[in-house]
Amino acid sequence: MTLYGYWRSTTSYRVRIALALKGIACKQLSVNLVTGEQVAEGYARLNPAAGVPALVLDDGQVLTQSMAILEWLDETYPSPPLLPSDPLDRARVRAAALGIATDVHPVNNLRVVGRLRSMGHGQGEAVAWMNDWMTRGFTAFSQLIRPDTPFCFGDRPGLADLCLIPQLYNAHRWGCDLAPFGRLTGIETRCLALEAFATARPEAQPDAIPESAPT
Amino acid sequence: MTLYGYWRSTTSYRVRIALALKGIACKQLSVNLVTGEQVAEGYARLNPAAGVPALVLDDGQVLTQSMAILEWLDETYPSPPLLPSDPLDRARVRAAALGIATDVHPVNNLRVVGRLRSMGHGQGEAVAWMNDWMTRGFTAFSQLIRPDTPFCFGDRPGLADLCLIPQLYNAHRWGCDLAPFGRLTGIETRCLALEAFATARPEAQPDAIPESAPT
Repeated sequence: MTLYGYWRSTTSYRVRIALALKGIACKQLSVNLVTGEQVAEGYARLNPAAGVPALVLDDGQVLTQSMAILEWLDETYPSPPLLPSDPLDRARVRAAALGIATDVHPVNNLRVVGRLRSMGHGQGEAVAWMNDWMTRGFTAFSQLIRPDTPFCFGDRPGLADLCLIPQLYNAHRWGCDLAPFGRLTGIETRCLALEAFATARPEAQPDAIPESAPT
Repeated sequence: MTLYGYWRSTTSYRVRIALALKGIACKQLSVNLVTGEQVAEGYARLNPAAGVPALVLDDGQVLTQSMAILEWLDETYPSPPLLPSDPLDRARVRAAALGIATDVHPVNNLRVVGRLRSMGHGQGEAVAWMNDWMTRGFTAFSQLIRPDTPFCFGDRPGLADLCLIPQLYNAHRWGCDLAPFGRLTGIETRCLALEAFATARPEAQPDAIPESAPT
């Protein structure tokens, strides 16, 4: 299979971690979101939503939307699981993950922030916008996960950790104050010590631009 | 069980449809998003994300995030199913549903639009913002569903329809041009002819305010 993604895309990062955790071999192709490759005709035909990631299976089937891809990966390659088996436990993990995936990431993604800029707001206002949604999201997330486990919900990372770590990457990038979120940065340290997370990091991708200017 | 929601909340609307489709008896309590009841201490203790819906089970367990609640309902009350059984088909339905749930709704919800207003943008700009994200989202959604079935993916409504219909309610409310989306409004007509959708409509809720001013 082939993953179309972008090094700094936090939704691509989620899927990279899942592929690595499950040991799934996958070719990666870069879609440069900054130069607009996601809206070019060839890619838009692959993913009508003009976003990354898209996962193309060996028979040509295309999967889009990171959360749908993660659920598919978990159903198709169940080991190690991203979700627990009990429905109520699954609902709790999904609720925390979706807190990032719906309440934080979409409001802060490149096209939304780009539109804000086009409405006359400077970089400082755009950064304040992003950090405000992250702070609210991390505050809620901290109360939705377990208080005392190595990872969000237990002894190994799962769907919530896969959403948290990329969002924290973005938080560091934009200088979000993480001092109130020691529980989350503790989980981050433990995740990034795992090879699956380390290899999935933006900086470890072939299309990464070292020390690039904020975009 | 008890559903905390709000008549005009499109995420509450999704869950109301699912409960009705599955024939699950559920008490409903209103959380007035316009007067800020979602951030009042009592409710915020129930849902740290300070949003609706929240589903409280008879033993006091609280489920949050509409998409997590819908997955839980489908796992716990499997008939009629909201998702098909084949993993690839499930991924397709989830991708369309998440196109609404992540790319459209979060960017347009009350707190985001309220923040835009607080940044100096008038009602006209706020409405243009909402309609732009809806138009983009409906364009992608139209290409992600099947082209010729009564409902988004077949002969009965599922998770994608449950996300589409509430978003179309919002589109009508804000005057979004739906002329290019005849496939979607056709599905809407068929859905709203079903009792489960009709009873879940915002206007049919006890907390509905008839002819209320836009908020």
